[in-house]
Amino acid sequence: MNRELSIEQLGSEIIRLIEKNRTSEVVLIIEELQPYDIATLFELLPGEHRPAFLDLLDIITLTDMVEELDSEEQYDVFSLIGTQRTTEVMDRMDNDDLASFLGSLTNEEKDAFLSSMDLLESTAVRQLMNYPPETAGRIMNNRYVWIPQHYTVREAIDKIRDFADISEAISYLYVIDEDKRLLGVVSYRDLILAKLDDRIHQIMYTRVISVTVDMDQEKVADVIRNYDFLAVPVVDENNKLTGIITVDDIIDIVIDEANEDIEKLSGNGRDIDFDTKPTVAAFRRLPWLVALLFIGMISGTIISRFEDTINQIVALAFFMPMIAGMTGNTGTQSLAVVVRGLISKELKGKDVLRLVRRELFVGVIIGLICGVLVTLLAYFWQGNLMLGFVVGLSLVVTLIIGTIAGTVIPLLLNKLKVDPAVASGPLITTLNDVLSLFIYFGLATLFISYLI
Amino acid sequence: MNRELSIEQLGSEIIRLIEKNRTSEVVLIIEELQPYDIATLFELLPGEHRPAFLDLLDIITLTDMVEELDSEEQYDVFSLIGTQRTTEVMDRMDNDDLASFLGSLTNEEKDAFLSSMDLLESTAVRQLMNYPPETAGRIMNNRYVWIPQHYTVREAIDKIRDFADISEAISYLYVIDEDKRLLGVVSYRDLILAKLDDRIHQIMYTRVISVTVDMDQEKVADVIRNYDFLAVPVVDENNKLTGIITVDDIIDIVIDEANEDIEKLSGNGRDIDFDTKPTVAAFRRLPWLVALLFIGMISGTIISRFEDTINQIVALAFFMPMIAGMTGNTGTQSLAVVVRGLISKELKGKDVLRLVRRELFVGVIIGLICGVLVTLLAYFWQGNLMLGFVVGLSLVVTLIIGTIAGTVIPLLLNKLKVDPAVASGPLITTLNDVLSLFIYFGLATLFISYLI
Repeated sequence: MNRELSIEQLGSEIIRLIEKNRTSEVVLIIEELQPYDIATLFELLPGEHRPAFLDLLDIITLTDMVEELDSEEQYDVFSLIGTQRTTEVMDRMDNDDLASFLGSLTNEEKDAFLSSMDLLESTAVRQLMNYPPETAGRIMNNRYVWIPQHYTVREAIDKIRDFADISEAISYLYVIDEDKRLLGVVSYRDLILAKLDDRIHQIMYTRVISVTVDMDQEKVADVIRNYDFLAVPVVDENNKLTGIITVDDIIDIVIDEANEDIEKLSGNGRDIDFDTKPTVAAFRRLPWLVALLFIGMISGTIISRFEDTINQIVALAFFMPMIAGMTGNTGTQSLAVVVRGLISKELKGKDVLRLVRRELFVGVIIGLICGVLVTLLAYFWQGNLMLGFVVGLSLVVTLIIGTIAGTVIPLLLNKLKVDPAVASGPLITTLNDVLSLFIYFGLATLFISYLI
Repeated sequence: MNRELSIEQLGSEIIRLIEKNRTSEVVLIIEELQPYDIATLFELLPGEHRPAFLDLLDIITLTDMVEELDSEEQYDVFSLIGTQRTTEVMDRMDNDDLASFLGSLTNEEKDAFLSSMDLLESTAVRQLMNYPPETAGRIMNNRYVWIPQHYTVREAIDKIRDFADISEAISYLYVIDEDKRLLGVVSYRDLILAKLDDRIHQIMYTRVISVTVDMDQEKVADVIRNYDFLAVPVVDENNKLTGIITVDDIIDIVIDEANEDIEKLSGNGRDIDFDTKPTVAAFRRLPWLVALLFIGMISGTIISRFEDTINQIVALAFFMPMIAGMTGNTGTQSLAVVVRGLISKELKGKDVLRLVRRELFVGVIIGLICGVLVTLLAYFWQGNLMLGFVVGLSLVVTLIIGTIAGTVIPLLLNKLKVDPAVASGPLITTLNDVLSLFIYFGLATLFISYLI
């Protein structure tokens, strides 16, 4: 019956049922839903109905739902359900999700939460949080099933049964030796196709592809993406199995990394979305804008140096924004190619050279075509061939330089291991402004006697 | 033994073995590798060794490898292995991969390839290619296993055995009625945990979440991402099962969509990466640049209208690029938030209003702070309070307008169902240039008597 109802309609229905105290019907509805739907429902409910709704969820459903919420909402849920249920939920949560929640808290809050937990689980989470952010160790979870290689298929299936509540989310069994070193991997499908008395070591796949705890999360995403894996095991320096990373987490990482690139290119501060408050959004964007304001004053100083030139030929000022703008645009185009390329490819020395040469060549082609075009436009508009020539020549030079700047600066920052966020679009644009004005007025001053 | 060797080392080893005609050893190496590794190996091999290498692959391995290559390399492989093996490979390929390959060919080539294929397979692919690009129908594949609900678990497992060569890539069995309508879903894990004599309808999950053939691929990605699915079934308007979409394809889609957004923001043409030839890259970027050149001339015309004003106070020209640049930057920041937000959220009327109001507020905060700052800077630099005031006031107004333009233009284009690529970063930047110069010189002319 619920198949046809939207989540919004289910939400109204649930509010109605809660108000009439018909809780058993609410439970029936919830039973049919996926964790994501339950989380969406929870978000739709007004604050007054939330405690009653949470009371109706059993601990497994509650945990699954909490894992779908963002940190702020998780905090709200925990404050509503009381210490005991909170502890139960935390003990059951995937420890990557829990680490991510705890990471959003102050140290005092974090310790308070951890101290109430099962020691085994809290130790696992503490260990996870010791790994640097954005590494495999930080995003792995401990919800995997391992078996020794002498097991029969029957014994393996029994073990899956014992771990039924966590096995839903997994796709492979990992085979380890007595030191927990990774020996092989077996998929559910392998188990189904094998005979019950087969030994695991007969059916396991031994050339296991794994990632190390310190591997960057982007590299982990590449492994999962290239091999079309559903999960990848994480090992320490001794090839000891320490966790797994699943494909659903990888999708989120791929999106996060793309958003980071876009923040870079647009000079937005981190994490501004449709729900960010205006003051927060403004103050995240301001640092860049203020910095650029000062750089913009440099371009002002450059122009002021050429005051005499402008005084003699005011028409030079007409082409100023066009030249600065075009240079900024080509720079951003190159920047986008480099920033995007760096995430999918490790650049070697000769690749860098080839890329810079390519962009140089692109700059020359773009520069020549746009340069000739603007020479003609300027000539027909101002009736001054020499003026057209100066504008066109400037554009050729600045477009070439703009392209190179947009390529070399992010590569250089990447090489110097400087946070590449520094090579933001606005920075390149503003630097190119300064450069292009200097070149433009420089050339104009050089040719001034022919211009008047 | 091969675990420790890198793919490059394996490549050299294979070249050595092929040259010595020790092909059985090559086969042993290949057997241990994943399709992605074999594809990487193939790409590493010089042209002269490729035919010998391809000869050593059995048809299943060859198919798996071909699916990992890009269209150009697939074409190369097909021309090397001859018509008969090509046909065998194509009959076995996932039909979404095959459709994607055929989509890169001319119509004549496509028909030639299709005509040699098994009729059943070629019909399936032709059907797929009838769906519009970027819809669920176009990206689904037919490598799924369906069962009737009266089957026992034992019968289901037998069916999986029969389809062993395709079942590796799947995670769920789909339960259908006699009209192929979707009734339920069963995971491999469900089969393992059930008894062999259980009926499928007893263990299947019935509130199946499916997508329709005409659904946009971004929406499909959202479904898989939100529900953490490994695959999602695709149904037609009568709820008839027509295909599945797997999570590995979704990761590629998520990356493609992010790249599209970045192309939008940077005004790059499509698909420029590190390997694109310079002429191709240049001509993909040129259309935007030429268009912007003409828009840039508009800003020139505006400035020329204010020639008298500039003639009287040349200092006005000093602040021109800063004002234009700052306005462009705030516009791009807003644009990035909107473009990125639109992919993750369906906007309703009241959301739009709330977003525009938020960005307006952001514009006011940013404008006031930067405006006051620049008033002071201009005053101290030029010693002219009124000039500082005009520059500052202009910046307040242009930053507010820039923010709103960066928000409203993409929203409007989205609403009008215009290809949102039109709302590129350079367009917003250049439009903001024009607007800001008009406001700046307008205000200056208004206050001209106080400025001299």
